[in-house]
Amino acid sequence: RINPDRLWRDLHETCEWGKGERWGPGETDIGMSRLALSDADKSARDWFVATTKSLGCKVKIDAMGNIFAIRPGRKDGPPTYAGSHMDTQPTGGRYDAGILGVHAGIEALKTMNDHNIETEYSTGVINWTNEEGARFPQSMISSGVWAGAVTLEKAYSLAEVGAGTATQRSELERIGYLGSLEASYKVNPLGAHFELHIEQGPILESSDRKIGAVEGVQAYRWYTITVRGRDCHTGTTDFRNRSDAMLTAAKLILHSHNKAAELGCLASTGILSLKPGSTNTVPGFVQFSLDMRSKEDQKLIDLENALRSDFAQIAAGDEIDSINKVGTKGRGCSVQWVMDTDSPATKFHEDCIECVEASAKDMLGVSAESKIQRMTSGAGHDSVYTSRRAPTAMIFVPCRDGVSHNPSEYCSPEDCANGAQVLLGAMLHYDRL
Amino acid sequence: RINPDRLWRDLHETCEWGKGERWGPGETDIGMSRLALSDADKSARDWFVATTKSLGCKVKIDAMGNIFAIRPGRKDGPPTYAGSHMDTQPTGGRYDAGILGVHAGIEALKTMNDHNIETEYSTGVINWTNEEGARFPQSMISSGVWAGAVTLEKAYSLAEVGAGTATQRSELERIGYLGSLEASYKVNPLGAHFELHIEQGPILESSDRKIGAVEGVQAYRWYTITVRGRDCHTGTTDFRNRSDAMLTAAKLILHSHNKAAELGCLASTGILSLKPGSTNTVPGFVQFSLDMRSKEDQKLIDLENALRSDFAQIAAGDEIDSINKVGTKGRGCSVQWVMDTDSPATKFHEDCIECVEASAKDMLGVSAESKIQRMTSGAGHDSVYTSRRAPTAMIFVPCRDGVSHNPSEYCSPEDCANGAQVLLGAMLHYDRL
Ligand SMILES: NC(=O)NCCC(=O)O
Ligand SMILES: NC(=O)NCCC(=O)O
Repeated sequence: RINPDRLWRDLHETCEWGKGERWGPGETDIGMSRLALSDADKSARDWFVATTKSLGCKVKIDAMGNIFAIRPGRKDGPPTYAGSHMDTQPTGGRYDAGILGVHAGIEALKTMNDHNIETEYSTGVINWTNEEGARFPQSMISSGVWAGAVTLEKAYSLAEVGAGTATQRSELERIGYLGSLEASYKVNPLGAHFELHIEQGPILESSDRKIGAVEGVQAYRWYTITVRGRDCHTGTTDFRNRSDAMLTAAKLILHSHNKAAELGCLASTGILSLKPGSTNTVPGFVQFSLDMRSKEDQKLIDLENALRSDFAQIAAGDEIDSINKVGTKGRGCSVQWVMDTDSPATKFHEDCIECVEASAKDMLGVSAESKIQRMTSGAGHDSVYTSRRAPTAMIFVPCRDGVSHNPSEYCSPEDCANGAQVLLGAMLHYDRL
Repeated sequence: RINPDRLWRDLHETCEWGKGERWGPGETDIGMSRLALSDADKSARDWFVATTKSLGCKVKIDAMGNIFAIRPGRKDGPPTYAGSHMDTQPTGGRYDAGILGVHAGIEALKTMNDHNIETEYSTGVINWTNEEGARFPQSMISSGVWAGAVTLEKAYSLAEVGAGTATQRSELERIGYLGSLEASYKVNPLGAHFELHIEQGPILESSDRKIGAVEGVQAYRWYTITVRGRDCHTGTTDFRNRSDAMLTAAKLILHSHNKAAELGCLASTGILSLKPGSTNTVPGFVQFSLDMRSKEDQKLIDLENALRSDFAQIAAGDEIDSINKVGTKGRGCSVQWVMDTDSPATKFHEDCIECVEASAKDMLGVSAESKIQRMTSGAGHDSVYTSRRAPTAMIFVPCRDGVSHNPSEYCSPEDCANGAQVLLGAMLHYDRL
């Protein structure tokens, strides 16, 4: 069995790097702000490398800064990995962000060492770079490069959100994690990939389940939408003579929400910027992010197609679903779509899912039946890309109120330990397969 | 008569300081970006001081950096001034911004010198500080301090929009324009205040008039609206479980527009910022500016009262005018209003308006009747505050397409000259009163 206290202690120790907002009185009631490739991320990486080396692991770093720590097994061949990531949202928590997943992997290796467990094949832990897509706005981009789904050029040139000029490449160099190993499943294959993660949603908690055996991930697409109108004076320009990019953006955001609700999808805007940014100037330029999700690829495409045509009409000033009222029609704006991320619906490997279930049953015993649930992830994870090139599955544990991407995100010590235990068991089950 | 070429040359010469975006091929087809108290503003001020001194003026600078250049008359007593401002919007033009108004005032003094005109009382030109309220978000704040309507503390501590930390006081000190004279109508009274400005709207142009005799300014209020929700994951949180501050802000902006249209008022949002700013995090915090205007104070109050109650309902998720659709209701957000500017409707002084009309008639001769129009200004100007403490009126000239607060704003050399001529005449008419 894994050591729950050691896991909890290690996890919160590394959360010193990139501490965020305090949300409660407790010692660990502090969120995280460890953006990918920041100084805090470097410190967490240095800890990861030193710790896994001290456990006797061989450590490899690839051209995207992905770190692979390998504990030798009896035979040669691609290792069975636990993988996740240590970067976080700007106002994230201590569990998402794959912090829990990485720590549980390390705890699994420590437990194998404690009990001198010999595995058939090697086992290991991976820390993937920039899973969140928060600072550099494409999620899971480095496992994407590894899987051959994203080109190295695109990943290297990806620039940070906001006013800064850093790219992923410049930051990898700056913090010393631009490795020499090619980022590729061909030269660096995985035997299997298991990822422990908090659910980030309310399903397990509300149905009183302990372990989610994740079968796949819903589809999602990210776009940057640019609305162009004309700067003009707020006091002297009547509504008819405006091309108000902010008002238009407000309509598009509201409409994307209504349409997604109608089609049973999700749509969200997390970033918005405008120009010129003065109280008495109607903005001629607005840019915002649009994150659309659905369990089914086709539904996501239906939503996108509907929005593409509706956005054009709304921006032109045509009445749609009472969004443009008669009498307030202006001169219209233009709308442009640029795709940032395209992650189709993913199905994980049945063998791996069964290893997760078997391991969960080992742990939960008689109560297993009512405490394990197969489910689909609402969020993307590096497992989306590993599943294209290696047998993959995920393990979910409950988090309080289903809250994530929030400083107050919380997963109890017991649930963290359960997750790590199931992770270890799943790796060993798979190794024996 | 004023010298049209000299006026045009001087105006575009000083537009070298704070050059903005090019919008056309011509030599002067470049917008302005001369934010209040910036280095470019300092250069324009230095030019103003040097030029008016070379004309024999006495120059005074008050504690808000307002500059008063005085050409002595026969008798003692408060001077008859032409006043406006040389700061601009971040993407402004060459005429608004009181650039034209200040230059026309200087041209008026030059013309008096050219013809050795002696006035009964002194005459002068004023450059008011931060009329635009773009960098430091309260418009006309320095004439407001002079008029006793804004406290010096409030004006000094006003911080710049965005990430910077400068205040009006720190920037006044930095550029060397924190004067020793008290900013007050009591110690530094005006005999009268005439302000030439482009109309910034389409009325004169579309009715083929040459001169607007401005009777007053519509009422306006600026608020900063803060919407607070809860950060959460865009992929794992269904709509029912969200407190989406961005979606709520979009609804409020749209509703403010619809309600203003219904009540015959204006409402506009020119600034919006959100936190944390990540594609896959639903923002828990949004702040935006709300600029509301009406010709009548009571109508503006009616609009504000309606929006205060509707905003609260919309944020709570109640259905209003089909803005919140059934089935997409979340957990609600909170809304907070903080007032930035309150400028009630202003009526100018009948004597001054008549001086403007008389001067325009002198210039236009037989065609005067069809070329002059009494009108109300849609935008605020320093004349709003001077009118509380001294006889005041404004002169409007047409601008192309009514466009302002835009780099491509344009006023023809002929209209600039007409404006300056009427300004000079109005000052002399008033002096003789
Ligand atoms: N787990 C997680 O938040 N991943 C980032 C990609 C996504 O937004 O789904
Ligand atoms: N003229 C002008 O743009 N003044 C700024 C104050 C306002 O927004 O009306």
